[in-house]
Amino acid sequence: MFPKGFNAGGIEAGISKKKAKKDIAVFYSQLPAQCAAMFTNNLVKAAPVALSRKHIEIVPHVRAIVANSGCANACTGKQGLRDAERMCEITADRWGVSTEEVLVASTGVIGQFLPMAKIDSGITGLIHAMRAKKGDPNAAAAAILTTDTKVKVAQAKISAGGKNVTIWGCAKGSGMIHPDLGFPHATMLAFILTDAAIELALLEEALAVAADNSFNCISVDGDTSTNDSVFILANGAAGNRLISRPGSDLAAFSVALQKVCLELSKKIVLDGEGATKLAEIEVRGASDDSDARKIASVIATSPLVKTALFGNDANWGRILAACGRAGVPFEPQNVSINIGGMTVAENGMAKKFSEKRAKRLLSKKEVHIVVDLHKGTGRGVYYTCDFSFDYVKINASYRS
Amino acid sequence: MFPKGFNAGGIEAGISKKKAKKDIAVFYSQLPAQCAAMFTNNLVKAAPVALSRKHIEIVPHVRAIVANSGCANACTGKQGLRDAERMCEITADRWGVSTEEVLVASTGVIGQFLPMAKIDSGITGLIHAMRAKKGDPNAAAAAILTTDTKVKVAQAKISAGGKNVTIWGCAKGSGMIHPDLGFPHATMLAFILTDAAIELALLEEALAVAADNSFNCISVDGDTSTNDSVFILANGAAGNRLISRPGSDLAAFSVALQKVCLELSKKIVLDGEGATKLAEIEVRGASDDSDARKIASVIATSPLVKTALFGNDANWGRILAACGRAGVPFEPQNVSINIGGMTVAENGMAKKFSEKRAKRLLSKKEVHIVVDLHKGTGRGVYYTCDFSFDYVKINASYRS
Repeated sequence: MFPKGFNAGGIEAGISKKKAKKDIAVFYSQLPAQCAAMFTNNLVKAAPVALSRKHIEIVPHVRAIVANSGCANACTGKQGLRDAERMCEITADRWGVSTEEVLVASTGVIGQFLPMAKIDSGITGLIHAMRAKKGDPNAAAAAILTTDTKVKVAQAKISAGGKNVTIWGCAKGSGMIHPDLGFPHATMLAFILTDAAIELALLEEALAVAADNSFNCISVDGDTSTNDSVFILANGAAGNRLISRPGSDLAAFSVALQKVCLELSKKIVLDGEGATKLAEIEVRGASDDSDARKIASVIATSPLVKTALFGNDANWGRILAACGRAGVPFEPQNVSINIGGMTVAENGMAKKFSEKRAKRLLSKKEVHIVVDLHKGTGRGVYYTCDFSFDYVKINASYRS
Repeated sequence: MFPKGFNAGGIEAGISKKKAKKDIAVFYSQLPAQCAAMFTNNLVKAAPVALSRKHIEIVPHVRAIVANSGCANACTGKQGLRDAERMCEITADRWGVSTEEVLVASTGVIGQFLPMAKIDSGITGLIHAMRAKKGDPNAAAAAILTTDTKVKVAQAKISAGGKNVTIWGCAKGSGMIHPDLGFPHATMLAFILTDAAIELALLEEALAVAADNSFNCISVDGDTSTNDSVFILANGAAGNRLISRPGSDLAAFSVALQKVCLELSKKIVLDGEGATKLAEIEVRGASDDSDARKIASVIATSPLVKTALFGNDANWGRILAACGRAGVPFEPQNVSINIGGMTVAENGMAKKFSEKRAKRLLSKKEVHIVVDLHKGTGRGVYYTCDFSFDYVKINASYRS
């Protein structure tokens, strides 16, 4: 299930000296595509982020996105900007489109320059192969990975305006994951392609809502990257009646896009560096949704909670202590905590529970934790993973 | 070097079923002592914190502090409050003082009740022994430890008002360490004893300033405890002229107190759970001190920075990325980063440096990292430790 009018591929250009893997991806649209994108709110923004923002402002349509792993092209000054621009130029030239119609994304080590000779021959070889045959979306999805252990792809199909519309997306994690995405435009990267015909303003709004309820409520390590980016290209190749106003078509599209974003987000967390499980932290009964989400975020980023999750330890005291430092008022003596369907604390105190059962519930691949403040109707969710020996192992030696 | 008119001791009461160690400490002043104390700002406050706050408000002087490790008596409701009160009662009764003149502190697992029979006989046996002989401050310092591997004691001697004045303090870490102490009154615990004669308001101010530049700028894991508490007792036994206004005596006292607090703070960090080193994160050139400290705090709590420290990896890109999400405006292209005396980044970009030398500098027991924003004159420091395999090991199995 891949949207019409798109081509995607990946190739190994040898960017990282230490790891043999595909490292350049190209996403190409046969038709001019509407593009909405969201970029990191980190004050330190990588060169490709700065350049993609600029291109989106200049041109009404996008034709291609080129992405590399192995080097983030961040903190690289003017040369970094020139290198990012050159990636767009090469891609544009090989497809016969203009440089500004090409966007760029990078992920990997910060503070190193891109090996431009390898990148040039990599892009050239890849596009040559994509022109010759249909391309390979899974190869593109593989090429954007760094410490990820799995390719992350999600898709959805809806019927809109009398036609089948497809949404396909791929994403990468798996460290420095706590995206904070802002318009107009996470090292989370996500590339979403759809053959829907949809007006830009509606596409942007649909992406903003979907990202806010997916990419923006996940955390692997609480660190926000310099390179986080989410792109969606909509090329209209499905031939549906243009989605130009609120209605059932827009609703169906928005729900499907949200589903794709959430599936990619959960896959990022579950494949977080060293992660052995996915925890859905749900806070209920807060004064409002914003308070609930703030508390869920603090729990989701607490090293003590995350190591307890790794140890399958129903240490609800650490959860409650994390709530207490979120800067949100609530009554500790009213709080109940439920882990995997079993209440472990009530009225802010321990409730007798089977430690054996708790261990069993916590050792599942997905754990649902509910903290109820019993105050209002606010609700918020954060997705996180556990903190394992492997997280330390991966990150104590990532760069060198 | 122990202040006059004080007695301190520790005993094993068997509070934890899993670990044989001293677990009850008593600090006793032969004279009524002025007491300043600071407690956690976490909304979830343990029973001993609530009770000590109440006692300090009721009585003008304090005679004793009783403390236990192995059980935090937090999230224990009304029974927890009764148990904390009973600890004060037993201590008061054995010394022949009133219950309100006794403060209490606990540290250990959250959500469990204190084993009161053991605590009763422990306190009784300890005070009996302290009355018979001089006590043992180091035993008190040992009894408050949980996952700490070392006793933490610091002291200072000054001359004030014609007399020798001694300040002695002990503290415990070593997880859930990111104190956020507030007046009127953070599971860091510190007990400071001094034989100085000093007015309460000045003692409180000296403690507030000292704590703000020591306990409040350390982080082991970014988690703020429900039980953090710092106490200082000043009993006047040195016989110095009462320190009742600003001047050289107050200045000397304040400097000495700050020195004791900072030494205890650094010992807490260096003995942080799984820590192999102490890192002093100094941010210079910010708009103001508050901005500098905010950035230093974000760097000090970044798991990616802390795992890189463990791996002796001069990964300055992670440091700069952490700066960028602190919510403080600065120009990334002006930032320089220095690790252990060696500049690794300048103008927001990599500077050529010897990786071998960087590894050597980073493998020291204490590492000084300076981030200069080159914007203003604001300066702030945070002390942190690295994130090791042992941190995960300790915390994946702490409760069970």
